[in-house]
Amino acid sequence: MKLLEDRITDEGRILPGNILKVDHFLNHQVDPQLMMAMGHDFAEHFQDRQITRVLTLEVSGIAMALTAAYALKVPLVFAKKIASVTLGDNVYSSKVYSYTKKREYTIRVDKKFLADGDRVLIIDDFLAVGQALGGLIDLCDQAHAQVAGIGIAIEKAFQGGGDKYRAMGYEVYSQAKIREFSSEGVIFAAD
Amino acid sequence: MKLLEDRITDEGRILPGNILKVDHFLNHQVDPQLMMAMGHDFAEHFQDRQITRVLTLEVSGIAMALTAAYALKVPLVFAKKIASVTLGDNVYSSKVYSYTKKREYTIRVDKKFLADGDRVLIIDDFLAVGQALGGLIDLCDQAHAQVAGIGIAIEKAFQGGGDKYRAMGYEVYSQAKIREFSSEGVIFAAD
Repeated sequence: MKLLEDRITDEGRILPGNILKVDHFLNHQVDPQLMMAMGHDFAEHFQDRQITRVLTLEVSGIAMALTAAYALKVPLVFAKKIASVTLGDNVYSSKVYSYTKKREYTIRVDKKFLADGDRVLIIDDFLAVGQALGGLIDLCDQAHAQVAGIGIAIEKAFQGGGDKYRAMGYEVYSQAKIREFSSEGVIFAAD
Repeated sequence: MKLLEDRITDEGRILPGNILKVDHFLNHQVDPQLMMAMGHDFAEHFQDRQITRVLTLEVSGIAMALTAAYALKVPLVFAKKIASVTLGDNVYSSKVYSYTKKREYTIRVDKKFLADGDRVLIIDDFLAVGQALGGLIDLCDQAHAQVAGIGIAIEKAFQGGGDKYRAMGYEVYSQAKIREFSSEGVIFAAD
């Protein structure tokens, strides 16, 4: 998606540890017009998949998952990684290891909000090795919900998560697929 | 806003401790069509205030703040309460006490994203005693940004936060203003 690639090229910054900082428009300050365009792009890509719910993980996936759900006219569910007093024990949960934060955390979804028969579009802002994605797929599996598609804003293709899940048969669509970071900046993969 | 009041009446549940659970449509599963209607309602209410940025606090305020920012055609900034490896030290920060979680936490905004001259619309999902709101106002004050309006989805009027900030001169607009919880369910204030 050229719109997103251009914003990454113009405003993204590369930090040590292969961290791409996109806080001007995506995960601290957020450009709502861009989010709406991204949501419509996801919806268009997966329009024939009979999606019944969009699933994301708080926090940074919410904006683009909301606009995708809006365009698809289905509910959005966000898995929680922060303990909540109002979330009871009737949950599906999965453990996710964060390489960035170097710790394991638990993600949870109330069992009411993922069901057998659901066709789920998973959306997240970043895909690197695919730890968070694996947790979200696990939640769907526990609910006997079908993962009908995976939409990613920014895939760091050199970290292998996307190809791993493609090899498992999932359709992973990334709006900006980064082949490598170099002294020239960000280099995108052709597809 | 009748649309939101009706959803609270139909789908909200009251838990011990005056907690209103709205996880079917607002803060776990999210209805994107409702969020868009709420965003447009906020935008319409504050359309003459020359808003330059919308500010909210992660997590549950993001959906309705995003749609408000979309309708107002301004950026959304969400203050962070979760530590982030990509958020540096160049931040405004404020301490907020959570009565629900019975602990203090720190909220932060990168100094790049709140500036002298900004006219900020603060949006949040709940207003009870106003602790989180106080923190968001404090961030704006530190940046010499003007709080041009405060938009709340659900105000628990009996907990006093809304009237406290109205008495300080802020315009607080709540889409659903709850006068009390009773055995009959939720009773809304007239205005």
